[in-house]
Amino acid sequence: MSAISTKPPGGTRDFLPGEIRRREHVIKVVRDVYERYGFEPLETPAFENIETLLGKYGDEGNKLIFKILKRGEHESSGEADLALRYDLTVPLARVVAQYQSELPKFFKRYQIQPVWRADRPAKGRFREFFQCDIDSIGSTSPMVEAEQLSAVSEVLSTLGFTDFTIQLNHRVLLTAMLEAANVPATLHGEALVSIDKFDKVGPDGVSKELIARGVDSASVAACLTALDSVPAFERLVLSHERGQSARAEVDRILAFVAGTSAARHVSFVPRLARGLSYYTGAIMEISVPDLAGSLGGGGRYDNLVGMFLGRDVPACGFSLGLERIIVVMTERGMFPESVGGGAVDAMVTIWNDGSRGDALVLAGELRRGGLRVDVYPEADKLGKQFKYASSRNVPFVTIVGDDERAAGTVGVKDLRSGAQQTMLSSEVAAYILRTRTLGTP
Amino acid sequence: MSAISTKPPGGTRDFLPGEIRRREHVIKVVRDVYERYGFEPLETPAFENIETLLGKYGDEGNKLIFKILKRGEHESSGEADLALRYDLTVPLARVVAQYQSELPKFFKRYQIQPVWRADRPAKGRFREFFQCDIDSIGSTSPMVEAEQLSAVSEVLSTLGFTDFTIQLNHRVLLTAMLEAANVPATLHGEALVSIDKFDKVGPDGVSKELIARGVDSASVAACLTALDSVPAFERLVLSHERGQSARAEVDRILAFVAGTSAARHVSFVPRLARGLSYYTGAIMEISVPDLAGSLGGGGRYDNLVGMFLGRDVPACGFSLGLERIIVVMTERGMFPESVGGGAVDAMVTIWNDGSRGDALVLAGELRRGGLRVDVYPEADKLGKQFKYASSRNVPFVTIVGDDERAAGTVGVKDLRSGAQQTMLSSEVAAYILRTRTLGTP
Repeated sequence: MSAISTKPPGGTRDFLPGEIRRREHVIKVVRDVYERYGFEPLETPAFENIETLLGKYGDEGNKLIFKILKRGEHESSGEADLALRYDLTVPLARVVAQYQSELPKFFKRYQIQPVWRADRPAKGRFREFFQCDIDSIGSTSPMVEAEQLSAVSEVLSTLGFTDFTIQLNHRVLLTAMLEAANVPATLHGEALVSIDKFDKVGPDGVSKELIARGVDSASVAACLTALDSVPAFERLVLSHERGQSARAEVDRILAFVAGTSAARHVSFVPRLARGLSYYTGAIMEISVPDLAGSLGGGGRYDNLVGMFLGRDVPACGFSLGLERIIVVMTERGMFPESVGGGAVDAMVTIWNDGSRGDALVLAGELRRGGLRVDVYPEADKLGKQFKYASSRNVPFVTIVGDDERAAGTVGVKDLRSGAQQTMLSSEVAAYILRTRTLGTP
Repeated sequence: MSAISTKPPGGTRDFLPGEIRRREHVIKVVRDVYERYGFEPLETPAFENIETLLGKYGDEGNKLIFKILKRGEHESSGEADLALRYDLTVPLARVVAQYQSELPKFFKRYQIQPVWRADRPAKGRFREFFQCDIDSIGSTSPMVEAEQLSAVSEVLSTLGFTDFTIQLNHRVLLTAMLEAANVPATLHGEALVSIDKFDKVGPDGVSKELIARGVDSASVAACLTALDSVPAFERLVLSHERGQSARAEVDRILAFVAGTSAARHVSFVPRLARGLSYYTGAIMEISVPDLAGSLGGGGRYDNLVGMFLGRDVPACGFSLGLERIIVVMTERGMFPESVGGGAVDAMVTIWNDGSRGDALVLAGELRRGGLRVDVYPEADKLGKQFKYASSRNVPFVTIVGDDERAAGTVGVKDLRSGAQQTMLSSEVAAYILRTRTLGTP
């Protein structure tokens, strides 16, 4: 029977207690900041009806969706009717369409849940990973983008990041560029996917890919010149009518951001393209120097809700990748010491077989006093019990031997110093709370 | 395009903000209590390799497992290689086998995650639901059962339940009963599934089902007599050698529980059987009078880890159903008023188009002061903005008109009383924190 692999499936992970505490530290900061920005929590099911997801993420995305077999008599058909959540944006669009009468006119929600993608697993790339999304529904105001940039910036600052940069661009500017460079409209989608790889493959790589996708070399040259600098980009796109209004929108966002703590992190970057097809306006991406790829990104997608609702609803969102944040924080040693602390404050030891009931009573008293308390479950030798507590970084153990029992007292040993004191059981919780962070008493 | 259904898949739910706040209230209590009992958090992937799950939950369980199609070139085979988590116990057993060298000798973990079962959806029965599990690995001591009963009891007490009952029985006692009643060993598993329905179908229903499963009528009569009362049960099982030691174990658990706050809730109930096949010792179930079925249950399963590890490891666990707890708390109105509170403390209004940047700056200041703050995104008429804030139960709005702007002040309106005060922007956060819970100032 032991032939079954006990590893988690490829691309997924088990989170043991220490790792969970690091994840929870980050999630708590994300949640607290987003709540202070007026975002409200939302959760959606792990799977959606398959037609909800198919066709929303492009051909590449369709292949990466985990599909669930029909059940019962239909299982043998080999067909799928459900699919695992691939991002948090499409489920949100469905929710907005479904509950429009219950939701406020300007619905601001945050959502922190796992998504699943059948990508080839690699270092830092998982098949199950958490996204932390904020989205604002119902307004076309550039204040929305500015607020999201400010919120995301505050999340990273609160976690201790100082060196992140936020790139800002606008899909309509890119469209204007492609049109001004005479790239046929039918190739715009593919061209954006290629331009999105600029930081990874460089101008030569983008050039090669654009030509392979059928863009002629004059157009490719015009694009690459434009993507090289802000002035060159503006020369090309401002010659285009839609380019002017989009550029004015970017300026409004930058002006709003100027009054927030995000200001010094944000800059306008022509070659930011973002891969997803549903963006219609501003696009944003956040990164740090020591991580390839981004910590997160987002943008405006004014038509996606319309795919479910039948009428367009303005929307804008930003997604942070929990795993990427944790990878960088771990490599840089950014987690506070308290996050790695022991699981319990005290362990109640067992004097002998007959004192096990008393041990549970004492543990109950200490827990009511606010301590996290473990009880050693066996009447092993005391030294063995101490050793176990030490190995788990438990700072205090309690000892109730025959003398203590007769006197109604408890011995409390600080395993860090070895010092031992005797006190009434009613005094133990307060004593440990007082001295647990002070080191030796 | 609007033909796509926007409902969540059958048996699953979207959780809008108010519902999430209720769920988080319960989860926080569960987590806090379990932490005070020395349990540590664990999380496992949403899906497992399919062979990890198949065969662990009986024939009925196998049918209810959601299976995930192979991907890429293998998708057309119609075969599944992964399956969604069906409970939290089997993944734990896999984790214990995989990380045995990293985990403490006595590993106590809690896990609060969704599981998926392709049950027919019904009132209060979902296909995606959360389990809150505690499990203690590595000790056969009945202190383990007592601690778990005490912890679960404290969770429910802290949530405000006073009238729950915890039933306790022992699988070996049931086996002794079946043997003493001459039920063939090959029918024991099925017989337990039938006896498990006692509270639902009554003695006649159990009797019919046992006979249908091939148990002869004399054996059925002997069982039903035994299940009728503790003395009758003991008369039968104590005649059996294994029955005596199991009964002694139940007594030890009850003696340990006597010193805890669970004492007045726990009783020994012969007809408690529990459906799952992996239990080997004590079994436990918790319920309230106004809910059919249980709020949760558990038991000792000393062989399950061995199915992965190749050698047995003692284990005992208890699972609480989050949804069932919430159903009862909602019906009884047990949620504190604060849980249903508004999402934000204040909304910053927009005086006119030119003041939107200032609004974001003010919002930033209030957020740094500890408030949850929303900013109205459009320069609509002020009355419309107030109305929107009221509809969302926002207690305060800020107003910075031309006069306030010139004077460097902020108007703060309490929408509950209509009272308005003017103050320095640096005073607003403290003022709102001071008066938000007091009603009118």
